[in-house]
Amino acid sequence: MSAPTASKIGLNTALPSIRRIHSIIRDKSEAQVKLLTGDQLVGRILWIDDQSICMDVASEKVIIWQQAIAFIKG
Amino acid sequence: MSAPTASKIGLNTALPSIRRIHSIIRDKSEAQVKLLTGDQLVGRILWIDDQSICMDVASEKVIIWQQAIAFIKG
Amino acid sequence: MSAPTASKIGLNTALPSIRRIHSIIRDKSEAQVKLLTGDQLVGRILWIDDQSICMDVASEKVIIWQQAIAFIKG
Amino acid sequence: MSAPTASKIGLNTALPSIRRIHSIIRDKSEAQVKLLTGDQLVGRILWIDDQSICMDVASEKVIIWQQAIAFIKG
Amino acid sequence: MSAPTASKIGLNTALPSIRRIHSIIRDKSEAQVKLLTGDQLVGRILWIDDQSICMDVASEKVIIWQQAIAFIKG
Amino acid sequence: MSAPTASKIGLNTALPSIRRIHSIIRDKSEAQVKLLTGDQLVGRILWIDDQSICMDVASEKVIIWQQAIAFIKG
Repeated sequence: MSAPTASKIGLNTALPSIRRIHSIIRDKSEAQVKLLTGDQLVGRILWIDDQSICMDVASEKVIIWQQAIAFIKG
Repeated sequence: MSAPTASKIGLNTALPSIRRIHSIIRDKSEAQVKLLTGDQLVGRILWIDDQSICMDVASEKVIIWQQAIAFIKG
Repeated sequence: MSAPTASKIGLNTALPSIRRIHSIIRDKSEAQVKLLTGDQLVGRILWIDDQSICMDVASEKVIIWQQAIAFIKG
Repeated sequence: MSAPTASKIGLNTALPSIRRIHSIIRDKSEAQVKLLTGDQLVGRILWIDDQSICMDVASEKVIIWQQAIAFIKG
Repeated sequence: MSAPTASKIGLNTALPSIRRIHSIIRDKSEAQVKLLTGDQLVGRILWIDDQSICMDVASEKVIIWQQAIAFIKG
Repeated sequence: MSAPTASKIGLNTALPSIRRIHSIIRDKSEAQVKLLTGDQLVGRILWIDDQSICMDVASEKVIIWQQAIAFIKG
């Protein structure tokens, strides 16, 4: 599944937080995502849309609901 | 209960996250859903609407409120 | 208190999740409601509106705020 | 502080959940409010508005943000 | 920083909950704020806006996001 | 990445809470951010937008989703 264009999915690309996540995606660098459950997922962020972030964690695709995100380092 | 058409229930099918869940539903593959309660449900996703996801967990139907979802692997 | 008509309280009855809850109400079957607090309530669902679900738990009426629901089995 | 009229504060009094809370207020009966923190408050509900519920708990007024409510028995 | 006028920041001052908080602010009395984290902060409430409440806790200013509030006694 | 202008990202700069965060950013003083996970992050706040706050924590950039913030001292 290729990344959709931001305009089609309503992302506000003027937001620094969205620009920062997009830069992490482009760099294909490792990111740490801490969730409200206390889980911390480590891997590459593949895409972000209005609702979720998709990560590759140990070669498995994980769809993280944004409502569950506490913070992202990367 | 048959799956409703996306247009009737307001799902934004352009979202990669919705497309990903629909692909998991079509494949009838096993998915893991981690909740904010810490529960992890394993089973087949039957349908998704604006509010919930329905899973078949050990032959029992579970209506999961999306607000409670942390992440989905599948 | 009789159940209000869905149109008066803004419920989207086209949603499969609402249709499923209504079917549980009609069947008067026992349901399990797991909350974000970790509580699990068992009883009959009496009605649902935009904000809450009312259950009869051991002959006591409990108004559950929907924001607190993780999942429903029934 | 007297209770405001529902129309001034935007409460949807057609909702069964609001009608139920109003009936608990009128009856001046004891209610139990379980919160997402795990706290359970016991006392009389004095009023409800769009944002909060006010309880008299051991002669102390407590303003409970509705976002923190799991369920109410009473 | 002086308190802004309510009209500028969109607070609905007809809500009993907002009126109650304003009365606690005017009285400069000690309030207890219980958070969804389980923390309980004790001090004077300095101001409230649409998003936050500012407290003076042991002479330190704390900006509390309203989304984190369970209840306020005072 | 330079700080965006507030008007471009929809921040309501009339809110005292936003003005307070902007003042912490300008002062480059150390702030403590307590999250709903129980984590407490200590460092400099670099920017805030509608969705997130970015902190420099031990020379690492952390994007904190505002939904996860309980309170900020600084």
